Amino acid sequence: MVKIASQTAISLEEIARQTQIAARQLALLSTAAKNEATEAIAAELEKSAPEILAANQVDCEAAITNNIPKPLLARLKLSETKLTGAIAGVRNVAELKDPVGAIQIHRELDEGLILKRITCPVGVIGAIFEARPDALIQIATLGIKSGNGVILKGGSEAINTCLALIKAIHRGLSKSQVSPQAVQLLTTRAEIKALLALDEYVDLIVPRGSNAFVRYVQENTRIPVLGHADGICHLYIDRRATIDKAIKITVDAKVQYPAACNAIETLLVHQDIAAEFLPKIAARLAKEGVELRADRAARELIAVSEATESDWSTEYNDLILAVKVVESLDLAIAHINQYGSKHTDAIVTENDDAAANFLDRVDAANVFHNCSTRFSDGFRYGFGAEVGISTQKMPPRGPVGLEGLITYKYQVTGVDHIAANYTGENGKSFTHRDL
Amino acid sequence: MVKIASQTAISLEEIARQTQIAARQLALLSTAAKNEATEAIAAELEKSAPEILAANQVDCEAAITNNIPKPLLARLKLSETKLTGAIAGVRNVAELKDPVGAIQIHRELDEGLILKRITCPVGVIGAIFEARPDALIQIATLGIKSGNGVILKGGSEAINTCLALIKAIHRGLSKSQVSPQAVQLLTTRAEIKALLALDEYVDLIVPRGSNAFVRYVQENTRIPVLGHADGICHLYIDRRATIDKAIKITVDAKVQYPAACNAIETLLVHQDIAAEFLPKIAARLAKEGVELRADRAARELIAVSEATESDWSTEYNDLILAVKVVESLDLAIAHINQYGSKHTDAIVTENDDAAANFLDRVDAANVFHNCSTRFSDGFRYGFGAEVGISTQKMPPRGPVGLEGLITYKYQVTGVDHIAANYTGENGKSFTHRDL
Repeated sequence: MVKIASQTAISLEEIARQTQIAARQLALLSTAAKNEATEAIAAELEKSAPEILAANQVDCEAAITNNIPKPLLARLKLSETKLTGAIAGVRNVAELKDPVGAIQIHRELDEGLILKRITCPVGVIGAIFEARPDALIQIATLGIKSGNGVILKGGSEAINTCLALIKAIHRGLSKSQVSPQAVQLLTTRAEIKALLALDEYVDLIVPRGSNAFVRYVQENTRIPVLGHADGICHLYIDRRATIDKAIKITVDAKVQYPAACNAIETLLVHQDIAAEFLPKIAARLAKEGVELRADRAARELIAVSEATESDWSTEYNDLILAVKVVESLDLAIAHINQYGSKHTDAIVTENDDAAANFLDRVDAANVFHNCSTRFSDGFRYGFGAEVGISTQKMPPRGPVGLEGLITYKYQVTGVDHIAANYTGENGKSFTHRDL
Repeated sequence: MVKIASQTAISLEEIARQTQIAARQLALLSTAAKNEATEAIAAELEKSAPEILAANQVDCEAAITNNIPKPLLARLKLSETKLTGAIAGVRNVAELKDPVGAIQIHRELDEGLILKRITCPVGVIGAIFEARPDALIQIATLGIKSGNGVILKGGSEAINTCLALIKAIHRGLSKSQVSPQAVQLLTTRAEIKALLALDEYVDLIVPRGSNAFVRYVQENTRIPVLGHADGICHLYIDRRATIDKAIKITVDAKVQYPAACNAIETLLVHQDIAAEFLPKIAARLAKEGVELRADRAARELIAVSEATESDWSTEYNDLILAVKVVESLDLAIAHINQYGSKHTDAIVTENDDAAANFLDRVDAANVFHNCSTRFSDGFRYGFGAEVGISTQKMPPRGPVGLEGLITYKYQVTGVDHIAANYTGENGKSFTHRDL
């Protein structure tokens, strides 16, 4: 009964159609029924752990033979601890508030004519991710909790692990009220392009991967995409910054996890503090193995290599940091609004006016004062789960939790109300009374 | 100082850049300052009324010479009453709650580390509309109230009226804290395509026009589009409907304003009530001049022309209605979910279970019970103003008021908080306490 794309002859369109049907049933289930389904998944994943770990072993051995980069191998590797953690994550999702069915507006339009705006699932989510097999578990569970069908496409290097995981998930779902067809796995790369064309069945694409990959997805689908292509984050050290704080925050924002999208790529320093701050931070970052690339003014104070125009718009994802001296807060903000990717930008200052100015005027999803850009994250914000980070300007913006997988509909109930009675000279008035 | 595109040599990109700068200043203004600006616009429009009406007279005479369709001419014509109404509309916008600066989330992440999610303007709106010159007044005012810059492109048939209106608006703004460059007018058709390419400066496109035009816009820009291409709305008469209510609501939903996007295009009738209902509604709609196109089962009860497959997906925008007999509520819902455009669909029934089932399972932005689809409208919902109606699944969905012109940003303020302290075995925990 459970179909896996590569193992059967059914088309991707047929799979998507089945997912849509299953998703529409799932959308109507109670919170309890959805939580029972995620618990059933957790139980089956536990039971299938030996099988899953063995499959992952096969993937890892192939990856080593194929000489895949070490960080990728680290993400691919599913240790017993990691799997136990992922299963605990499934159970945590059951604890999250059900995002479906919340009444956002409840209003009498006129006597007996009642408007409600109610949250509901988006429908079918297409999730495309790289090596990390634990992402499959997380996305499938978040999909079920939010009442959405999910079509998953994992990296080819994780194929055996993904197949073992989806089998366990399907076994779990078959013991629940959720149809196993609500969660589908695609296994070939060619299916990505086909998936992006299925706007009749797929309502949202969540790509997780490199910038280039996310941009490819954005440019090749009419389906809305939740994601960000770039993470060029800035830290601005204001003239009124405390040096110690500035050093502490700079090091954390650059070094703590340089491959993260919320790590900084450019350090802007006010000219009045540059002579004191730059030599100190340069010495400290040198110890951390960070390469600096600086503009002319900065290089008069520290002996580092020269930054070129392209450095201001490069996401290094590595221990490299561009440095620029600015003459004013205004110029720092202008630089960020020109080169930033509207992800996360921070100021260090003891001047509250400068901070307020920065937070108001920097055009980014996340604007910070006296803390590291690395806090820009759904878990750290208390969303319980992170579906992705969006750098588009329209909502959902920034770190997106379960909220990103739901939408709303307007329901109006009347007795026999018609619009003609509310038009013309003697038309009735609306009461517009919130209930 | 006030620049109008066609009259100067500056490029569209330069205009958009100026609008972005002006919009960033406008975004920071207080509610009072924005309301003063809209009042200044209202006053200048009043003062310039003779000039505006004369310009409109020139446009209307040219339109008559060019034999433009009558409904278009009616929309183009700006009578003194219509202009007075539009100016009253400007003053009404001042009464609307300022959508900027609302705190949606206020949370302690840890001691001294505070998260706020605050609403803010989107940036620059590109609004493209057809004949109606009053749309220009409305969009410009809503843009200012929501802190956004606006680049307007009206229909070429309204060129003289639009130029007179923008002059008055600029005169008003020059007496306020809002830069006149926050509201710009484009006057040539070629500029539409160029505008759609300016994703660096324009954050949202609001197209108002034909389905074909909206689809053209959606397919030719990377900028988010707020709009809907189709309005194929359904009314389903359940087996447990009261005949009188069903007739009253059907007539209103089809006849009251057939060119509106929320008028119905297809009438679905349960087979158990068809024999009684169909002859009555057919007779009544014939009196209203409505042409019916029905499926085989319906044509056994009423003598009307035959519906073909294409009728189920045609938006007539006219006094034509497709009619289909369905065997069950489930099949009615399936038909709507297959052919509908996720705009507005309604059920007439006295059975609350059937109504709940319909409202839950029909996948549309607006789902109604025992009232006309014509209520699907921002003003009728009490939003004060309607920016557009969106049939996409992700928010903003359905009738969109000022809310559609705003977004939000996350602001985090700390003391010297760094992420490294919250990771690893001895990492601190977050408090995640809503304030």
